[in-house]
Amino acid sequence: MQTIKDIAEMQALAEKWRRAGKKIALVPTMGALHEGHLSLMDYGRVEADFLVVSIFVNPIQFGPKEDFEKYPRDLEGDSRMTEKMGVDVIFSPEAAALYPSSFQTYVNVDQVTKHLCGASRPGHFRGVTTVVCKLFQIVKPHLAIFGWKDYQQVCVIKQMVIDINMDVEIVGRPIVREADGLAMSSRNVYLSPEERLAARSLSESLKAALSLYNEGERNSEIILSKVLAIIMQHPIIKIDYVKLCHPRTLEDITVIDESGVLALAVWCGNTRLIDNCILEESKNDQNLT
Amino acid sequence: MQTIKDIAEMQALAEKWRRAGKKIALVPTMGALHEGHLSLMDYGRVEADFLVVSIFVNPIQFGPKEDFEKYPRDLEGDSRMTEKMGVDVIFSPEAAALYPSSFQTYVNVDQVTKHLCGASRPGHFRGVTTVVCKLFQIVKPHLAIFGWKDYQQVCVIKQMVIDINMDVEIVGRPIVREADGLAMSSRNVYLSPEERLAARSLSESLKAALSLYNEGERNSEIILSKVLAIIMQHPIIKIDYVKLCHPRTLEDITVIDESGVLALAVWCGNTRLIDNCILEESKNDQNLT
Repeated sequence: MQTIKDIAEMQALAEKWRRAGKKIALVPTMGALHEGHLSLMDYGRVEADFLVVSIFVNPIQFGPKEDFEKYPRDLEGDSRMTEKMGVDVIFSPEAAALYPSSFQTYVNVDQVTKHLCGASRPGHFRGVTTVVCKLFQIVKPHLAIFGWKDYQQVCVIKQMVIDINMDVEIVGRPIVREADGLAMSSRNVYLSPEERLAARSLSESLKAALSLYNEGERNSEIILSKVLAIIMQHPIIKIDYVKLCHPRTLEDITVIDESGVLALAVWCGNTRLIDNCILEESKNDQNLT
Repeated sequence: MQTIKDIAEMQALAEKWRRAGKKIALVPTMGALHEGHLSLMDYGRVEADFLVVSIFVNPIQFGPKEDFEKYPRDLEGDSRMTEKMGVDVIFSPEAAALYPSSFQTYVNVDQVTKHLCGASRPGHFRGVTTVVCKLFQIVKPHLAIFGWKDYQQVCVIKQMVIDINMDVEIVGRPIVREADGLAMSSRNVYLSPEERLAARSLSESLKAALSLYNEGERNSEIILSKVLAIIMQHPIIKIDYVKLCHPRTLEDITVIDESGVLALAVWCGNTRLIDNCILEESKNDQNLT
């Protein structure tokens, strides 16, 4: 396994691979890798000839009051994990190289970013799409793999790729959960034992919603009330949003027709957590425990 | 020569060329080709193995009151000219294919777009950078060639390419002029005989500015006054802007230090015309007649 920091070096290597007819997979991450990330690498390892994992805590996707400074960083631990996964290259550029002082160009997806986390975190998705667009130009992947835990992120990136005609396949992979159901996240390390316990209620609430759905309930209000009731048993948790929305446009829906996404974001103490599940007849096999 | 309308077909062909180790040059145009365009093709023909000319009147770079509808279109004439120039592919997609109804993603260069034409034509450069970014993903060129007549456009695209880490070389080529000095433009066909005569004053004013500069004048105000005095002899012409600016940031300069760009835009009757010249010691060989 090779670690590359230099942008031109990564780009030249990617170009060499492509010329040789090799297939490149990219797993873009902010490091602090966990089993969720590993499942993305697993997929890439099978599908491509060369697997690149980018590790970059992207400053422009954090708001001024968000956790950019304290976001967990562990390049050594990450390297051990990626080595085991058979990753070919870790690409970990410097922020000053990706964003020199003259930097002034942004990629913006207008509509699908207006909802959910986009509404709570102004500028967040502009930062995400800009850095992902840059990484795609540098690593030149044939496919890029993201976790459905960040449901809206996958939607936004798919939209960008279609709109800008990028020749990259975007693959979303299922959420990986802790034994008690909590969706894996690099931010879970922020949680105190008490918060960690309360955080269970997120996946429990989704499970309850899925049960209602499987019993035939299609009314958003009823399903959302159930979810809220379960989470709000824990005063340590503050709701950011709990929404039932269209799986592609992310607009609110009042009744689930073909399918809906139940997406939520909460503050568990000072830690922002998100989770989601899909309510769809063909998808009632989601493992929420 | 091949004409391709289909985006996926163009992208697959470009990918095939790249895999075979071939070098691709792109000349992006809105058609209504003239000798200025031909000089760009000349350069691409020499530098690359495959030369693609895109012909697409890009709706999103026109303002609501601008000349999108009446912009000259002549695909047959254009085809004859490109055939003669040894172009390999004309890429002429449909607007509905590049901008389907769900389209919502834009590339925006923030600062260098604020000046000159960017100030007069809100949204214009967002349309330019978005379509050029799309064309780069589809045609996958190693180099793309633009005319310096659109000085700001070249600056904006160079900035985008640097910021987004696009693996494309941007080449700017000298302005090509009519016998009397008028910079070639597809819009020149709009001019009435009277307007056509008055339009000479643009290059005449630049020539006068260049003379002043070559005599040692470095003060912007003095140079700009001279330019304005020459153009304003023609009441049929309304000034949009006449500016002396930094050649990269395009910010106004009051004194020419290492170099400056003299850029102007006017309304000649109902036709908007632009022109420019560089005031720089190494560049006093510009052919303005």
